[in-house]
Amino acid sequence: MADQDKIDPWGAIEIKDYNRLLATFGIKPFSQLRPLLVEQGIPLHLYMRRGIIFGHRDLDIVMNEFKKGKRIAVLTGFMPSGRFHFGHKLTADQLIYYQSLGFKIFVALADAEAFAVRRIPRETAIKVGVEEYVANLIALGLDPKKTEFYFQTNRGTPYYRLIQLFSGKVTAAEMTAIYGDLTPAKIVSSLTQAADILHVQLEEYGGYDYVIVPVGADQDPHLRLTRDLTDRLREVIDLTRPASTYHKLIRGLDGAKMSSSRPDSTIFLTDPLETARKKLMAALTGGRATAEEQRKLGGIPEKCTIYDLYMYHLILDDEKLREIYEECRSGRLLCGKCKRYAWSLLEEFLREHREKLEVAKEIAYKIVEVPGF
Amino acid sequence: MADQDKIDPWGAIEIKDYNRLLATFGIKPFSQLRPLLVEQGIPLHLYMRRGIIFGHRDLDIVMNEFKKGKRIAVLTGFMPSGRFHFGHKLTADQLIYYQSLGFKIFVALADAEAFAVRRIPRETAIKVGVEEYVANLIALGLDPKKTEFYFQTNRGTPYYRLIQLFSGKVTAAEMTAIYGDLTPAKIVSSLTQAADILHVQLEEYGGYDYVIVPVGADQDPHLRLTRDLTDRLREVIDLTRPASTYHKLIRGLDGAKMSSSRPDSTIFLTDPLETARKKLMAALTGGRATAEEQRKLGGIPEKCTIYDLYMYHLILDDEKLREIYEECRSGRLLCGKCKRYAWSLLEEFLREHREKLEVAKEIAYKIVEVPGF
Repeated sequence: MADQDKIDPWGAIEIKDYNRLLATFGIKPFSQLRPLLVEQGIPLHLYMRRGIIFGHRDLDIVMNEFKKGKRIAVLTGFMPSGRFHFGHKLTADQLIYYQSLGFKIFVALADAEAFAVRRIPRETAIKVGVEEYVANLIALGLDPKKTEFYFQTNRGTPYYRLIQLFSGKVTAAEMTAIYGDLTPAKIVSSLTQAADILHVQLEEYGGYDYVIVPVGADQDPHLRLTRDLTDRLREVIDLTRPASTYHKLIRGLDGAKMSSSRPDSTIFLTDPLETARKKLMAALTGGRATAEEQRKLGGIPEKCTIYDLYMYHLILDDEKLREIYEECRSGRLLCGKCKRYAWSLLEEFLREHREKLEVAKEIAYKIVEVPGF
Repeated sequence: MADQDKIDPWGAIEIKDYNRLLATFGIKPFSQLRPLLVEQGIPLHLYMRRGIIFGHRDLDIVMNEFKKGKRIAVLTGFMPSGRFHFGHKLTADQLIYYQSLGFKIFVALADAEAFAVRRIPRETAIKVGVEEYVANLIALGLDPKKTEFYFQTNRGTPYYRLIQLFSGKVTAAEMTAIYGDLTPAKIVSSLTQAADILHVQLEEYGGYDYVIVPVGADQDPHLRLTRDLTDRLREVIDLTRPASTYHKLIRGLDGAKMSSSRPDSTIFLTDPLETARKKLMAALTGGRATAEEQRKLGGIPEKCTIYDLYMYHLILDDEKLREIYEECRSGRLLCGKCKRYAWSLLEEFLREHREKLEVAKEIAYKIVEVPGF
């Protein structure tokens, strides 16, 4: 096949928009950083090897400084609404990876934003934050002893002082450009998000030299705002711009955007096995109209959400993934068999995860400080 | 004289606008409350007797509850910019009065707002907050042991949690109606101001049952917003609407609005005596074109900024004030003599104040916690 060279087992997701992001906003391609990391003896995460993390800002600087002994923090935030699914796991895996490198992990539970922007009652946000997000992260392997989980409404004066300072350094027009329709809730939430990212550099929270924020490609406007705020506040407080990495978003099982609000578009890590199996069996594949046609033309892994699951979550071995890719493309592996195989992997994962989750929930309630009133 | 009956020695300030405020926004006339307070054995402050405090919301409720043993807080805020002048003293006097009744006094130093809205450097806000505002309040007689002074950027998690909650309960349109041009700085500042007012009801800050906010007539929109926020958050946190009192604004010495930005419009409590004397001597009076004319027609205390000073600050005895009023109206007291008399009172006040201020500054630095970075 003439275009065989162009075919990339890591290229299952449409990359056109991501390239535009790289070109327009000065995000650097991750591919250029890869050899440098290898040279520095830093192991590459699956997502880095497979091009799922496709871009970054300043990660090269941070990794260099890390080698020189600087202290690095990684921060992410979760909106404590809905249930933890495989889209969230994408971020969780990166946290676990950075933790293994010796970076300090911070997890913000965005209860302030959940209440102000999405009208989620505070009790719900607290319960979901602890039982869904913290517990699942721990069950996935994030070491609770080396992670700081916190609710946005429970973070101490210096953190909020940043929000106050930020408020004078951004215009309504800039915020409208990011959020469209501007509300007090969105303004305060976005400044709070900037405080999440930057506060770990303050003495009171550990005084980390650098912070990395792993995000989906759609989150860059927030990062740009936070970087601008860092620059504009330099005279008042000397913080370093956050570094960030950008991952491709995993598609939903129906091929559209993965979303908690369409439960069939994703598998929740607490789905009963039978529910998960049904979702997986109904998932969109890259199969042809008939088995015969597929044997002749081969399947299209680039269009297959089962293949996405392999690539992002279920097959950690690159060679094994490549093998499946080729089996599918060649027409030797048909969708029925492939789905049964995927289910065997998923079932094992979910069974093990469920066991870990029980213990993790207990730990979660012990280590997370729940905000008052 | 036919209109003698209408003449009121406390009526020196144009009351038309204040009446509109009473009629339009449901502020109750203070005059109706006066006999009730007297009946309850609560002494009336000068400003209450003289109609300078002309309106209130819910002060009747608070005073009743006070008699039943409820704990009352009084809160005011000062923008730590510029210097402390006789306009500020108007608020200070009310704080001292409420303190004498046994109410707890809170003074917010609005450094967050000063930085975000007015671009005042943090170091300036801290220095001015402590040396001008806290020190002058103490020198005027506010007991530092019974007063809690704080900077907005240094107030602890539960206070900031209120801001987060508020942000989801107000629309951009409502804020635009109050502030006109809407900016992130103004939004955060106004929500911070609401937190100032309400946080004293939280357990962490003393858990006061009621809070009174004495303000100038122009500040009512903030109070209305804060009352609305209280109602809208009831399901989350049960706070009581703030009570408030409204005072007429003292005019500047030139008859226009008193403002720090026009130093000749007001006397600062730290003005050198000669500066203060010159300002006073140049002040607008209600005198006639010639001495002869004045002897014939009498002066107009209603137009006289010296008379304002008497009424608001320099003459505490009502009978003495009435005497001056009548001397002026009758044409027996001319402006030159009157100004010399005013200066004798002011000079004594400033001399004594200056002495107290030295000690007060030292105390101020000891008791106010200065925010970090």
